[in-house]
Amino acid sequence: MKLGIAQINPVVGDFPGNAKLILAAYRECLDAGAEIVVTPELSLAGYPPRDLVFKSQFVPKCLQALDYLADETKEVPLLVGYVDHNHPTHPGKPFRNAAAWLENGEIKHRIWKTLLPTYDVFDERRYFEPGESSKPIEWKGKRIGVTICEDIWTEDHLQRPFYHRDPVQELTSQHTDLIVNLSASPFSLGKPAIRRAMIAGIAHKAGVPVVYCNAIGANDQLVFDGHSLVASANGRITAQFPGFSTTNMVVNPFNEWLEDVPFEENPPEELYQALVLGVRDYVRKCGFSSVCLGLSGGIDSALTAAIAAAALGPENVRGLTMPSPYSSRGSVDDSFALAKALGIRCDELSIASGFEAVKQTMAPVFAGRDEDVTEENMQARLRGLMLMALSNKENHLLLTTGNKSELAVGYCTIYGDMCGGLAVISDLPKSRVYEVARWINRNEEIIPWNTIEKPPSAELRPDQKDQDTLPEYDLLDAILELYVEHHLSPDEIISRGYDEAVVRWIQRRVDLNEWKRHQAAPGLRVTSKAFGIGRRMPIVQRFIE
Amino acid sequence: MKLGIAQINPVVGDFPGNAKLILAAYRECLDAGAEIVVTPELSLAGYPPRDLVFKSQFVPKCLQALDYLADETKEVPLLVGYVDHNHPTHPGKPFRNAAAWLENGEIKHRIWKTLLPTYDVFDERRYFEPGESSKPIEWKGKRIGVTICEDIWTEDHLQRPFYHRDPVQELTSQHTDLIVNLSASPFSLGKPAIRRAMIAGIAHKAGVPVVYCNAIGANDQLVFDGHSLVASANGRITAQFPGFSTTNMVVNPFNEWLEDVPFEENPPEELYQALVLGVRDYVRKCGFSSVCLGLSGGIDSALTAAIAAAALGPENVRGLTMPSPYSSRGSVDDSFALAKALGIRCDELSIASGFEAVKQTMAPVFAGRDEDVTEENMQARLRGLMLMALSNKENHLLLTTGNKSELAVGYCTIYGDMCGGLAVISDLPKSRVYEVARWINRNEEIIPWNTIEKPPSAELRPDQKDQDTLPEYDLLDAILELYVEHHLSPDEIISRGYDEAVVRWIQRRVDLNEWKRHQAAPGLRVTSKAFGIGRRMPIVQRFIE
Repeated sequence: MKLGIAQINPVVGDFPGNAKLILAAYRECLDAGAEIVVTPELSLAGYPPRDLVFKSQFVPKCLQALDYLADETKEVPLLVGYVDHNHPTHPGKPFRNAAAWLENGEIKHRIWKTLLPTYDVFDERRYFEPGESSKPIEWKGKRIGVTICEDIWTEDHLQRPFYHRDPVQELTSQHTDLIVNLSASPFSLGKPAIRRAMIAGIAHKAGVPVVYCNAIGANDQLVFDGHSLVASANGRITAQFPGFSTTNMVVNPFNEWLEDVPFEENPPEELYQALVLGVRDYVRKCGFSSVCLGLSGGIDSALTAAIAAAALGPENVRGLTMPSPYSSRGSVDDSFALAKALGIRCDELSIASGFEAVKQTMAPVFAGRDEDVTEENMQARLRGLMLMALSNKENHLLLTTGNKSELAVGYCTIYGDMCGGLAVISDLPKSRVYEVARWINRNEEIIPWNTIEKPPSAELRPDQKDQDTLPEYDLLDAILELYVEHHLSPDEIISRGYDEAVVRWIQRRVDLNEWKRHQAAPGLRVTSKAFGIGRRMPIVQRFIE
Repeated sequence: MKLGIAQINPVVGDFPGNAKLILAAYRECLDAGAEIVVTPELSLAGYPPRDLVFKSQFVPKCLQALDYLADETKEVPLLVGYVDHNHPTHPGKPFRNAAAWLENGEIKHRIWKTLLPTYDVFDERRYFEPGESSKPIEWKGKRIGVTICEDIWTEDHLQRPFYHRDPVQELTSQHTDLIVNLSASPFSLGKPAIRRAMIAGIAHKAGVPVVYCNAIGANDQLVFDGHSLVASANGRITAQFPGFSTTNMVVNPFNEWLEDVPFEENPPEELYQALVLGVRDYVRKCGFSSVCLGLSGGIDSALTAAIAAAALGPENVRGLTMPSPYSSRGSVDDSFALAKALGIRCDELSIASGFEAVKQTMAPVFAGRDEDVTEENMQARLRGLMLMALSNKENHLLLTTGNKSELAVGYCTIYGDMCGGLAVISDLPKSRVYEVARWINRNEEIIPWNTIEKPPSAELRPDQKDQDTLPEYDLLDAILELYVEHHLSPDEIISRGYDEAVVRWIQRRVDLNEWKRHQAAPGLRVTSKAFGIGRRMPIVQRFIE
């Protein structure tokens, strides 16, 4: 039995566009001999539609598009993910996260997702009522168990036993020959390997093949990486789709003689690919064709520019370098060297006269007081103002360039360097920023080595270095991971051998800067715990650990 | 039987502070003859603690504080809301939204919340596992049914039948003499009346008295209004606590001879009180003592200043008026008149030279192009920069002054007038802004009548008026309510008699400006659907209605 797997890139809410994508993939798979075609979770609606589902016409239009797709299907069944209504008198949430089995012009079966993730970036219990039962579908003498994403995530791969039911066990206990899964599983570092282990484990335990179709493409903060999988009944991974690109392929999951296809993780490469896809989709799906950003001569803006140039083409990336009286000439030179290597345009505009004018304006109110962090922030905000002016005048989307370590401790200026529509590397700790930059330079110097090797500085006062204020980045990142990603208390972190003063300083900075992150641009999530929709801390709070 | 109701104001995560509040209220109620004392939902943890509960020491410290409270209780039981662990091997979410019955130094009973709201601003299924059963607690010959907030919200008062269980029915079917409810029910316009009708209805239907203890105080975007209630078994509301203030009171819910206490809604007064409490709590609980804001001479900044002065005292409010070449002298005069009436300090600083300097700086890049919205935004952003400088230099929290109508259609400048730590009136449609301003002026002119009566203008170009760009505010607000609060499609709104071009323009503006709202300051929620945590729209989407 040959299955077509359509690893496609839907846009949230774009029913006509997504229907077209699905149909094109269906036909391509038919031509390649597919006997069933599978698409990702909510392939017709895009994942996650979030509160759009509450709009009075969202589900009706989704169902119209589904009817259209049903009309276009012949004897080869097509599995489509969509949003359905819960029955109006059935208690619970108003909608279902659903899959439809379309065949010969009809919706033959409707399957509801049973396990609804409501943690981290997921909010499915806000919208959906879980399915009440799982039954295999008989087709051509085979019994096919259709599941949706979380339905196959077993306890071993979750933080705790979240669910009271086990759809895979329900299906296999009713004799199932094949498990098919429609997924929209977002990327984070290490996730492709976890999925492989899980899918192979399910196939091996149940003794049936598993076909796993994942979405690709970015929607807001989530980047879906594809990496669709096929496991044979003996637990071997017999096919793995490429990551970060649209692919349709026809596979036979019952081919048990196939070897395990190898998979090697390459963190900097995966991070780079995820961010390139994230930028391309965010910018294009928002209707922009070009971006601008500030180039400081530092590594964060250099990496962001390199990613943007790869995502959109260098002709669609516009840099500004905006030296202050405290900037070194080297920083400006590094920015121009970068721009040249990437092939992007870069202009130099000094902030000196604007800075002077604003200081003069504020003088009557500030009379008699020393300069302090106020004037440092002024410079960052003047740059933000100038970049937004360029964005407004030429219709670029402004990219902001801060990394995760800075955002964690608030080493960034709100309405200054935090200005922008997308925070490209805001989920990369500084140590990963270096790692990805070095990977980009693996064959030739694209990011100037000087940018990578010089001590990082915000250049907002004479001879300033990041490490005047911050701990060394490797230390900072190690503590941040324990505090932010693993929720450990300062005492627990200190007991692992870290310096108490450093740990408490970091903890305090992370907590105090929640308000800044509340107003941060959306960032592309690439680790297991990003700032953003997956981390929801109160601003007003007094919890002391 | 006399119950003490402690309508208190907890701070999220402040276990020592909240324990102290609870104990003080307990003792005060004891002195007044209480035989049981009830506190609000999660009174010990503060509501909502959000992702703080995932911190490894959050629940352990909460349980320590609970033990301390238990130690301090004598024979009069104390009901305390807290966060408990779910049993590690019990499937589901890791925590319980719980109430403890403390008596004679012990935790005598633990009650789990059964109905967990996961809609609008609520995310309880993200954290909590629902209680499995509801049983009355026997005490002094009475059977007391203890419930937590949503447990008593009946279908009639929800958007649809959300739940498969009915804790009130479960309790009354086991013979219950009294229903007690610990709540943290946030304010929105009309909510106090809904709660009254619901509580009276439950008492009447079940034939038992209901004691409803609600929290007061603001935490982030939510303002809890108190308005605790007692209903006698015949369905009369025999006590209603004041709104928006801490109050402890001892009541006898079995006093059936009492009359229904009257309650009259006064929308502008309630909105004003909610916002005053919201500002006071946000500012003080964040550790600030003073605020600053820009005064434009318009009504939004005037109302915000009046609310801030009432919340914090006029000596803790600092205004800046920042005229541009396009500002009228009248605007500056109105700002000073307002400052005088409120007793707040106001300084005048022109943005002219800063504006000129930035235009000159950008000239090489903008050469040959006309001025457009770019230069309008520049002015707003220069003001934002100056206000943030004042905030930084003098440690004020900056208040942003935009209203809901502007925020809806994006008639505001990101990183400009949107700068600030709290968006005070961002959930007030412009028509409500006028209503509250007139209410403030009911006895004397506090907000200059000229500010209220002149046509609104952003004054960013010569002779600009809001209505050059926007529909009349009454029309705009009516359409926005249908589109944003009721999720109607443009076609449905047009079919109610609104002009098609206006409706489609508004719909498009609302959708296109999602990205700006993503970076907006937290706002105080006072309507049933605010922008903010209760409305979660994707930015990247192409749903066309």
